Amino acid sequence: MRDLYNESEHAGHALAEMARLVGQALSQATEALLETDLRLAETVISGDRAIDALYREMDVQAPGSLAEQQPVASDLRALLTSLRMSADLERMGDLARHIATVARMRFPDCAVPDELRDTFAQMGEIGVQLSNRLARIIETRDVTAANTLDAQDDTVDRLHRGVFAALLSAEDKYPMQTAIDVTLLSRYYERFADHAVSVAHRVENLGTGEPWDDQP
Amino acid sequence: MRDLYNESEHAGHALAEMARLVGQALSQATEALLETDLRLAETVISGDRAIDALYREMDVQAPGSLAEQQPVASDLRALLTSLRMSADLERMGDLARHIATVARMRFPDCAVPDELRDTFAQMGEIGVQLSNRLARIIETRDVTAANTLDAQDDTVDRLHRGVFAALLSAEDKYPMQTAIDVTLLSRYYERFADHAVSVAHRVENLGTGEPWDDQP
Repeated sequence: MRDLYNESEHAGHALAEMARLVGQALSQATEALLETDLRLAETVISGDRAIDALYREMDVQAPGSLAEQQPVASDLRALLTSLRMSADLERMGDLARHIATVARMRFPDCAVPDELRDTFAQMGEIGVQLSNRLARIIETRDVTAANTLDAQDDTVDRLHRGVFAALLSAEDKYPMQTAIDVTLLSRYYERFADHAVSVAHRVENLGTGEPWDDQP
Repeated sequence: MRDLYNESEHAGHALAEMARLVGQALSQATEALLETDLRLAETVISGDRAIDALYREMDVQAPGSLAEQQPVASDLRALLTSLRMSADLERMGDLARHIATVARMRFPDCAVPDELRDTFAQMGEIGVQLSNRLARIIETRDVTAANTLDAQDDTVDRLHRGVFAALLSAEDKYPMQTAIDVTLLSRYYERFADHAVSVAHRVENLGTGEPWDDQP
């Protein structure tokens, strides 16, 4: 398989670091949401800047450092893949921030009704696991774990559909604000998992030159 | 300003073509949604493959054609920018497809209640205008229109907030399924406009080497 990190070990470190940071952000955002922790919500919101900075740094530095090496097509493809990965990870940070923003907006109330707490706790936990697995996949280039990520993504999709089913079966029970918040929150968790899987498959496909079709 | 198209006129054409295709997709998706036109919804859903194909073609071809030219850092930055643009455009196609999918799911009913038809029609129309403006910006590299796009994006954001306000003020009036559909649909239109603005600013910033911070 094409070795991205020989070209740019720095890029590999930055991507793994981003994966860990977005996992931490999602963990804190979920706690902020379910425990109505305003300070933690604000930590996630302001902390997203560090993730954005890593993304921008890769965009600015990678082309320059590669140009010094008279790159061939496979180098360029590896560059492109690493930058597609950084875009996914940056977006995962945004989604964690969106969750924290909803938590902050509803404080001191909890945006999530009691009956759905477990579902959101699970979606959060799986998202964090996905991020940490991803960091290891990026570092070790061992993509055997990618299948596990697919299975976990399926679980998040199932939980996401379960949120809608719960809203629909509780007709008139929840206020409209709760319906809106919960719909968007569930979508954020679902997209977070999608992007995680997308990054894992990009690592997997680094060797083939085939781009991963990432957009469900 | 750095001339992306001298490196790869083909990339410029492909990006402009993508902008036109996503504009057409959004136009058709909005009509499918508001006129409950099942066939048109299916046209959008299957047509998204053509947009995805352009995206993948750019990913596969661009690195190879650039490698023949002993690229310098600014060439690589232009490549990177064009591929960031193609990712935004591909995502815009997905969002149009998501709108068409909701239209298809609710057929023969309309997912949008009467009181919100005008709002969604406006969001759709602005999205189409944004896409067509974008195609011209990509082709002419005349970024003076980028400010117009920002203003139109602000209008979409306002309409998006208006959808939530309408749902909240009509407490208990709409069924839960409508609340869920309308929340997601409005989000899709809002994100479509965000991505359009992101592409316009990437064209603008091609010359500076500064990446556009695209993720609200």
